[in-house]
Amino acid sequence: MSIKPLNSTGPTLVPGFVFAGMAAGIKKRPGVLDLALLQTTTLQPAACAALFTINVVKAAPVVLGLKRLRHGVCRAIVVNSGNANACTGPQGEQDALETSQLLAKTIGCSADEIMVSSTGVIGALLPMARFREAIPKLVAQARAEHLVQAAEAIRTTDTFAKWHGVHVNLGGKNVTIAGIAKGSGMIAPNMATMLAFLATDAVIAAPALQEALRLANASTFNAITVDGEMSTNDTIMALANGHAGHANIKLNTPEFEKFCAALTEVCDFLARQVVRDGEGSTKFVELQVSGMDNADHLKTIAMAIANSALVKTALCGNDANWGRILSAAGAAAARLGLPADFSKASIRFNDTAVYQQGVPVGTEAEAKAHAIIKSGEFILRVTLGSGKASQKVYFTDLTQEYIRINADYRS
Amino acid sequence: MSIKPLNSTGPTLVPGFVFAGMAAGIKKRPGVLDLALLQTTTLQPAACAALFTINVVKAAPVVLGLKRLRHGVCRAIVVNSGNANACTGPQGEQDALETSQLLAKTIGCSADEIMVSSTGVIGALLPMARFREAIPKLVAQARAEHLVQAAEAIRTTDTFAKWHGVHVNLGGKNVTIAGIAKGSGMIAPNMATMLAFLATDAVIAAPALQEALRLANASTFNAITVDGEMSTNDTIMALANGHAGHANIKLNTPEFEKFCAALTEVCDFLARQVVRDGEGSTKFVELQVSGMDNADHLKTIAMAIANSALVKTALCGNDANWGRILSAAGAAAARLGLPADFSKASIRFNDTAVYQQGVPVGTEAEAKAHAIIKSGEFILRVTLGSGKASQKVYFTDLTQEYIRINADYRS
Repeated sequence: MSIKPLNSTGPTLVPGFVFAGMAAGIKKRPGVLDLALLQTTTLQPAACAALFTINVVKAAPVVLGLKRLRHGVCRAIVVNSGNANACTGPQGEQDALETSQLLAKTIGCSADEIMVSSTGVIGALLPMARFREAIPKLVAQARAEHLVQAAEAIRTTDTFAKWHGVHVNLGGKNVTIAGIAKGSGMIAPNMATMLAFLATDAVIAAPALQEALRLANASTFNAITVDGEMSTNDTIMALANGHAGHANIKLNTPEFEKFCAALTEVCDFLARQVVRDGEGSTKFVELQVSGMDNADHLKTIAMAIANSALVKTALCGNDANWGRILSAAGAAAARLGLPADFSKASIRFNDTAVYQQGVPVGTEAEAKAHAIIKSGEFILRVTLGSGKASQKVYFTDLTQEYIRINADYRS
Repeated sequence: MSIKPLNSTGPTLVPGFVFAGMAAGIKKRPGVLDLALLQTTTLQPAACAALFTINVVKAAPVVLGLKRLRHGVCRAIVVNSGNANACTGPQGEQDALETSQLLAKTIGCSADEIMVSSTGVIGALLPMARFREAIPKLVAQARAEHLVQAAEAIRTTDTFAKWHGVHVNLGGKNVTIAGIAKGSGMIAPNMATMLAFLATDAVIAAPALQEALRLANASTFNAITVDGEMSTNDTIMALANGHAGHANIKLNTPEFEKFCAALTEVCDFLARQVVRDGEGSTKFVELQVSGMDNADHLKTIAMAIANSALVKTALCGNDANWGRILSAAGAAAARLGLPADFSKASIRFNDTAVYQQGVPVGTEAEAKAHAIIKSGEFILRVTLGSGKASQKVYFTDLTQEYIRINADYRS
């Protein structure tokens, strides 16, 4: 049993933006979309914000993106799937640069106004001849209504394309925020990678946009895990082209709060889609951990529970195994060096407690929780003590199918 | 294909010690050994050293053991399998205490001279009636030659009993160190647990024995991982009864070094046995990580590689996927906040380099590495830079069989 995909009914048109997705021959299978474009058609470039993987081993497009981000502006993002351009040395960095130059030349701007992103096989050089041939065609076929094609083109092992959009009233104008994402746990046969690209016609300068993206990311993309891995290519990027024409959104204003909430809503939807598409997963779990005063400690403990092989395999087997959950929390607290006391902890599946104030509730409650887990989607509530902070993490179970996908020899 | 067990041909008789393993009815299947005894028959109790889980959630026998360890002496250790006596509250602590009192009464000593250990299902109370009936019988059947029966009795999902022994000349006397262990990754259907009990006739006081055990543990039991979990019950314990009669071994002497080396040899063999018995595993990997100056950082990075679901599944599929190994190392370095540079890293399977000084070696080398992995046992050498420290970790692959074992509903 697989989890159902989460389909968006949100808007996909973002005023002033065009999108494209095409088959450029980067992936082995012919005709499969593997090159995407997000471009603002406004006179001025869009404000640009981005968050990249903190992995010490960074792919070439991430290294280039970190440099380009300093300018805070961007006209277009080109993303390829099928090849991560990671661990490819100086030639890989040259290829990322050339890709940006090809796109800049085609649309008539400075290469500094181009962002590049890649996902797929690592350790292989990009097929640059394909890029040289494809990029003019990619720009030529860009359309306002092609957001979904772009979402299709950035897929690797994703079983469905991921996008979402919302409207929000800012300064009296109807503003759109829409985005696409890819990721389904670690990507067979090679790398993880979570990518998300957001486009909005809001009027917001790069520093405020960066702060909004940081806040939105913390509780969404940064609070999900399928297998605890961190890619060399992870990238979250947002472009704001100001087409809506309202007053500039400044930090620490009610309008900024509204923008953040809307951006978070889009990111949350995309993050849930990524987790639901977790490789081989049969469960979608919203984990809520509470009862300590330090939110950072809670986040570490929540991620430890979500990444525990024993917790994940128990959920795969529909087992309300609170002992494994408590043990994973205790191990994480120990690694943090905390003098924690979990002797009054409680664990609930939706509203069914299986462990209450340090005491097992019994087999009847566990049988009820078994049925809740079997439904495939539920909230796991872990209360460790009486502290006031709480944290939310989305995660999946670990299944034989995950192993099958990831153990296959690269071919 | 499973990995072959590692069989010991070492000595199992330790002068002055007797051992027992019996079926006490703690496990559900009748007739299965589930209660073990290690006892010194010397006039004076043995010096005792122990290391316990640092998990915040500690089982009742661990809580009792931490108190008892202050005395530094012990006459007997009783270990049951089938029930972990964890998350059992005040009644669980009372049961651990009563178990020690039952044994103390039977052999005629103070309960302070007894250690108790448990492994198995968590959240269930010990069947104390079975203990009351069994413990006198257990003591009655203890024999010098029954070390292997004790090893059998502490098994849970272990597919083979684990023991080893060595002789070492100390102060002109032929001294024996022998031990038993259990553990095979996390234990289906409930808990992890790594237990090891060592017995020696060496003359060494508790503080020196504790330091020797700490040193031996660091490079052996503390350098293995099957699934990255940490149990509520993990326990390593050593008894030295002084029967050999040589001069007392003092810290920081050549004799202490010899004792440590011999103790480490026993622990290393037992640790390898535990990893080889990793649930569902088909590969035994000795990971050697080097090239940084800080050994602690290297250990963290080595454990991150060994615990990476993507690395483990790649090895299951016989895939020399150096990209995943490098990415796992990079992610761990990032989490440590290190300004590390892995651009000149090298990765070898035995002596076959697949990634050399930051450059992929090519498909021929990967095919050769594929065959090495397929053999089931190999050394994975990861050189991250030019630093002088190195670390060794034993680990296994992650297979569909692991999921099957751990996803089964508790029954």
